[in-house]
Amino acid sequence: MTVCPDKNIVPLAVIKRLPMYYRQLRTLKEQQRVRISSRELSGMIGITSSLLRQDLNYFGDFGQQGYGYKVEDLYNIIGDILGIGKEYPAVLVGLGNLGRALINYEGFRKRGLVLKALFDNDPSLQDTKYAGLPVKGADRLYEYLKHENIEVGIITTPASAAQEIAETLELGGVKGIWNFAPCIVNSGSGIIVENTHIGDSMLTLFYKMKNAEN
Amino acid sequence: MTVCPDKNIVPLAVIKRLPMYYRQLRTLKEQQRVRISSRELSGMIGITSSLLRQDLNYFGDFGQQGYGYKVEDLYNIIGDILGIGKEYPAVLVGLGNLGRALINYEGFRKRGLVLKALFDNDPSLQDTKYAGLPVKGADRLYEYLKHENIEVGIITTPASAAQEIAETLELGGVKGIWNFAPCIVNSGSGIIVENTHIGDSMLTLFYKMKNAEN
Repeated sequence: MTVCPDKNIVPLAVIKRLPMYYRQLRTLKEQQRVRISSRELSGMIGITSSLLRQDLNYFGDFGQQGYGYKVEDLYNIIGDILGIGKEYPAVLVGLGNLGRALINYEGFRKRGLVLKALFDNDPSLQDTKYAGLPVKGADRLYEYLKHENIEVGIITTPASAAQEIAETLELGGVKGIWNFAPCIVNSGSGIIVENTHIGDSMLTLFYKMKNAEN
Repeated sequence: MTVCPDKNIVPLAVIKRLPMYYRQLRTLKEQQRVRISSRELSGMIGITSSLLRQDLNYFGDFGQQGYGYKVEDLYNIIGDILGIGKEYPAVLVGLGNLGRALINYEGFRKRGLVLKALFDNDPSLQDTKYAGLPVKGADRLYEYLKHENIEVGIITTPASAAQEIAETLELGGVKGIWNFAPCIVNSGSGIIVENTHIGDSMLTLFYKMKNAEN
């Protein structure tokens, strides 16, 4: 089965739901489930089965009427769509608590993120190691990128430093930036930037709490 | 102007975009912008102006044809919809790197999250303070909740502990759970749970990078 997503057609909202499907399918796979109906799968995730079928239809004709999806096949196909399986060499800039939390999160490595070096501007950290990875001065980032093949740059600095770091990452040739600083980082030449705002999900929580009271 | 969102009608996708509008409007407010057209505002955010207008229409009739939105009014209205302005007393369970990163993030306090106490099962942390907040044993969580009026419980424990902590939070009477453990926490009695999967935005990044290459 060939996966031919048309990037001009697949809405971002669909793409953002794929990781959720992927996680649930992994759980089912670990439970040794072989098949699952779209109704049961969508129920576990908390969406309607028509939305699930609609989403998956963007990528091909999966499942069979009255027969369901093969768990392992669908898991592999979604992983393939998401680009899992490939390895992404990465650097992380900003060795504060959030940076350390990300470095220690095993799930990232499992999905292909391979950290190669860490950068911070705290002089006391330079040339040390953290979690087995070399820690270098942020002023050495560009030089490092010029000599290594790094595809992803993760920014966990304060907001004030983020834009400059993003520009250095871009000049250094990374293909994608994953920004956690509480500000939107802009890329000049159109490399991919994913701005993650952890606080947004807090506001979603507040909204739901407020409306549950009414 | 009265804000009367109908919770049965507003799609979750719309709600999830509100924090993004809110952030951009705050930036404009800080820049002392008085008015903005839906075209300019949507351009800054990277969505179409028709989507912006459609989203805002769920909550009332804002803006005027050919005249735009009043920045401060719209900022306040969206803040009101999201439940910002109210204070949410909260506890956080799991004092690892991610927990510490959240505690130190000023943006949460600004939006009404007021941490009252921290919980962890590391004996060496008990009865210490972190960031001025008392740190208690996780085994004392239920007792604490019974005597305090806590509305939000934040879970930053490993996955293995998350479900049990969620049940204790629920028994203790919190109204909402914000879960960061890499697993989906289920609530028995239907209190609000927001599961935040930081890794999902990494997969979105990978997907975009993969498709930019094609």
